[in-house]
Amino acid sequence: MAGNLEAGRGAQGTPEDRLGAAMARFMDVHDGFVGVTAEQLAEAHEADLAIEGEEGVHFERAWLDPESGKVFCLSTGPSKEAVMRVHERAGHPTTEVYELPIEV
Amino acid sequence: MAGNLEAGRGAQGTPEDRLGAAMARFMDVHDGFVGVTAEQLAEAHEADLAIEGEEGVHFERAWLDPESGKVFCLSTGPSKEAVMRVHERAGHPTTEVYELPIEV
Repeated sequence: MAGNLEAGRGAQGTPEDRLGAAMARFMDVHDGFVGVTAEQLAEAHEADLAIEGEEGVHFERAWLDPESGKVFCLSTGPSKEAVMRVHERAGHPTTEVYELPIEV
Repeated sequence: MAGNLEAGRGAQGTPEDRLGAAMARFMDVHDGFVGVTAEQLAEAHEADLAIEGEEGVHFERAWLDPESGKVFCLSTGPSKEAVMRVHERAGHPTTEVYELPIEV
């Protein structure tokens, strides 16, 4: 499962993390998706959706600017680290994750 | 088609139609909102909403991470420049605006 993460940096996701805490909202940002197509973005998103439940995360939407290569993903989950673990395991890691307690 | 216009079909769209045809989606990013409250974010958003129509822009949602000071605004409009003009006139300029032709 997340053995590579545990070896690399020490995963902190316990069942308690996933079930106990209230859900928070997050925006994460990826770089380097220059020229990526709608189909490729959908594939990447599907890869997240396939495993997100194991971390108690749900990726709601993702938006791509293929010119700059930026992707913004809006999610809910128990922690930034859980969001990062899903993305890393799905093959598109990012460390740029923001918790968003306030929205209008 | 020019032939149709010459045949007297008249205008094919109102200014609103033409604006609609050119609508795109954008995400813009602001820094420096550390410690900003929900009320303050709502005020800033209201300042955008009060003038956005003049640029054909609509700010749908805004999310704040008061810890890092990042704000993400999702909007529709005719151009990045129009989005930037609304934010600048409303008192919170940013040059970091991404057009998002692809979403999942």
